[in-house]
Amino acid sequence: MLESVDLKAKMPKADFKKLYAELEIRLGELQRTVRSAQIPVIFVFEGWEASGVGAAIGNLLGPLDPRGYKVHTFIAPTDTEKLFPPMWRYWQAMPARGSIAVYDGSWYVQILTKDDKIREPGVRALVYERMRTLERHLTDDGTVILKFWLHISKSEQARRFKKLNKDPALAWKVTKEDWRRHRQYGRSRQIIEEMLRETSFPNAPWVVVPAHDHRYASALILKTVAKALDSAVRKRSRKRTPSVELPRRGVDPLAKVDLRLSLDRAQYQELLPQFQKELLRLEHLVYPTRIPVAILYEGWDASGKGGNIKRLLAGLDHRGFEVIPIGPPEGDEKTHHYLWRFWRHLPKGGHLTVFDRSWYGRVLVERVEGFATPQEWRRAYNEINEFEAELTSFGMVLVKFWIHISKAEQLKRFKERERIPYKQWKITPEDWRNREHWNNYYEAVSDMLAWTSTPNAPWTIVEGNDKLHARIKTLRTVAEAISRKIEEVEDDNNKRPKK
Amino acid sequence: MLESVDLKAKMPKADFKKLYAELEIRLGELQRTVRSAQIPVIFVFEGWEASGVGAAIGNLLGPLDPRGYKVHTFIAPTDTEKLFPPMWRYWQAMPARGSIAVYDGSWYVQILTKDDKIREPGVRALVYERMRTLERHLTDDGTVILKFWLHISKSEQARRFKKLNKDPALAWKVTKEDWRRHRQYGRSRQIIEEMLRETSFPNAPWVVVPAHDHRYASALILKTVAKALDSAVRKRSRKRTPSVELPRRGVDPLAKVDLRLSLDRAQYQELLPQFQKELLRLEHLVYPTRIPVAILYEGWDASGKGGNIKRLLAGLDHRGFEVIPIGPPEGDEKTHHYLWRFWRHLPKGGHLTVFDRSWYGRVLVERVEGFATPQEWRRAYNEINEFEAELTSFGMVLVKFWIHISKAEQLKRFKERERIPYKQWKITPEDWRNREHWNNYYEAVSDMLAWTSTPNAPWTIVEGNDKLHARIKTLRTVAEAISRKIEEVEDDNNKRPKK
Repeated sequence: MLESVDLKAKMPKADFKKLYAELEIRLGELQRTVRSAQIPVIFVFEGWEASGVGAAIGNLLGPLDPRGYKVHTFIAPTDTEKLFPPMWRYWQAMPARGSIAVYDGSWYVQILTKDDKIREPGVRALVYERMRTLERHLTDDGTVILKFWLHISKSEQARRFKKLNKDPALAWKVTKEDWRRHRQYGRSRQIIEEMLRETSFPNAPWVVVPAHDHRYASALILKTVAKALDSAVRKRSRKRTPSVELPRRGVDPLAKVDLRLSLDRAQYQELLPQFQKELLRLEHLVYPTRIPVAILYEGWDASGKGGNIKRLLAGLDHRGFEVIPIGPPEGDEKTHHYLWRFWRHLPKGGHLTVFDRSWYGRVLVERVEGFATPQEWRRAYNEINEFEAELTSFGMVLVKFWIHISKAEQLKRFKERERIPYKQWKITPEDWRNREHWNNYYEAVSDMLAWTSTPNAPWTIVEGNDKLHARIKTLRTVAEAISRKIEEVEDDNNKRPKK
Repeated sequence: MLESVDLKAKMPKADFKKLYAELEIRLGELQRTVRSAQIPVIFVFEGWEASGVGAAIGNLLGPLDPRGYKVHTFIAPTDTEKLFPPMWRYWQAMPARGSIAVYDGSWYVQILTKDDKIREPGVRALVYERMRTLERHLTDDGTVILKFWLHISKSEQARRFKKLNKDPALAWKVTKEDWRRHRQYGRSRQIIEEMLRETSFPNAPWVVVPAHDHRYASALILKTVAKALDSAVRKRSRKRTPSVELPRRGVDPLAKVDLRLSLDRAQYQELLPQFQKELLRLEHLVYPTRIPVAILYEGWDASGKGGNIKRLLAGLDHRGFEVIPIGPPEGDEKTHHYLWRFWRHLPKGGHLTVFDRSWYGRVLVERVEGFATPQEWRRAYNEINEFEAELTSFGMVLVKFWIHISKAEQLKRFKERERIPYKQWKITPEDWRNREHWNNYYEAVSDMLAWTSTPNAPWTIVEGNDKLHARIKTLRTVAEAISRKIEEVEDDNNKRPKK
């Protein structure tokens, strides 16, 4: 593949100047259209060391209004970044709708790294799959993604390294490590070819740019970008999101829930402090082992989520956990992919995050209220499963609760809230309105439980009519999930050959 | 001071339970009032190692709705945080209006660190001054700040360390370093007393909490918080911001500007590439020396800021700089202190940031359009000087341009924009409206130039009627400023005794 690239391709200065003058105005216009059409755009730049990525980015951004773009440079992850799943740092940098993000280095650095693990084809296959998944999530949401690979030959690289080495202001740019990797050019090329092949799809194509002549390279990039933005803007007017066939749901998972389950207060008062103590012990063990823990609560209004979370956390050290209550999106959340705000709030290694409502809003409130189109919420089951796989494959403990109560129990609690003065702030007309949609929500909940309960991220349905039973069940479930992971990590450590 | 603390203070369990039950409801209500009154709240927790800060925070937050608070733990700065001025990381964590931030560790870690530098009284005096300044900025803006010092005796600390050391889940919490610092308890106490004395003011008082008995400690904290929030809410209704006397302005700085200055195109075309090349060289030197560079542009509408910035950056590597265009605040920016968004966009060490308009909007558009009250914008001159001192004392290069044109020149350019099709997007009714306020803006600009030109952060007035002259002047000014700083850094490195 790379052999067929014409590295002799050149563009005379005069031709380039003419083309650039034309494209300068056109790209400025396109940027304004992209902004008003609220299309997010990502340009990924990867290339051989010294292939001229910096200059190429400069030529691309020259015509653009800085109000609308941002350049992100990704090299090896920092210590903080390592406490999150690998895709975390890229999500932090996601462009808002109508903005352009230029990624100098990207999720592909995982492949291009010197890390030995990546030399195993099986590992690479998994990484490719995750990249395709990420890109599909973004482009399905309307993001334009273009990926440029700047290609130069081994001898050209050597020539450029030597030139840099001679310049006092630039010598620091070429390190011994760069020279070492230069000597492995051939081996790297094989992997790069595989990467380009495995991750080039119409929704997020790779463009291989012959980069010996920087004018030719820039011209190619500018023309490709102009064409892609143009077509994105035109497509936007006849927006077409992929249609998704949903699997048939078998049994109704809510039908078998035994809401009579209960616990007497004496037992509760004996068990509660025991579990709280155990959770505190586990919180302390999670920190040095750097295990991230995410616990999410979904449930009917007045199902007792708040009180349940309170008991779960009452014994813990506040410096080790965080509660993220999820309401309607606000501020920057409104202009990004619906998963973006959850990426922002993921627990870092060694910490617990409790989500009071979660990304499942996409297939619950957004489905029922029509905030998401049918295509969007149907697609979301799969997206959410993939998102959670990303988290659990990083080693995150993920516990998901649906707190279930009967419709009659909800009515009883609503009325109680209206009666007791210091509880009145908890009940709003919104709650009564949601209750009218009980059946629609019921169906949405059943679908959610059926299609997003996966081996690594199963749902736990909590029988919530009796609050005491519900509290002990969630505490026990969380404690067991964390213990299991700690054992797993310790087992792994024991199996690993001592160095 | 700390000697007079009654460490024997105790609270029986029954009393505490009763008090807690009362305060639980009251604090919940206060939190909702604080939210609707849009008051930002900061609770700072500092204390001896093992003084029970975690438990105290737990008791304080127990009654509160997690929707409204966030706990931030600050220990030693990470490598990334070290690339920014010391206050940067605290600004990132600032609560939005109506929210509560709990700082476990705070800007005071600078004093409580084991760093030897801080042993010098002169260094400490400076740090205290900066803390008082930070807190004054926040409380003048309406933030409630309470600072708790949890106090235990040396022998109590030893007892607690030993107990922790014995527990398998907790042993990692007490390190050799903790024991070493324990032995220096007396010396530390002197510095802590000084810190409490030097930084306790009515707007942001320290509360010393006897922490041998955790119930007594929590009760004191809870009562103090309830009282402070209560009084903040009541004060809010009769909002009173400090009134500021402005110094008299001497000469009008704009009167002496010679707008006839110009450059012929031949000279320009010779000089431009020279300076661009020089700036690229400097960009490359700034990176390994980790100097942060901020360049801000203010100027009349159509004064040529955009084109000027374009030439300044045209030769640079995009991975080393960023342009931050400042428009009306959006999203999260609206619910924070006006300086917050600039803290978010500061250059990190080794990088350049160009602000296209800046924090001076506070004393320009916000003053003229009445978005800030007279008290607010009058106060801002001093706040901005202090903000910039924070940046330059960290070693940041700060270059500030006012691009000046005559009223007649502006009219000519507005008309040209209307005439030329591809420039039409640049001119809006807003521009014509601003032009009607020329005289008001003129006065605001004169005041700004007079009161915020400081030795370390001087204004450069750029004669902008001739764009070519203006462009070369800004490039030259930036190049000189960066060169001076690089020399300074190199001199310092040479003077420093080799280790």
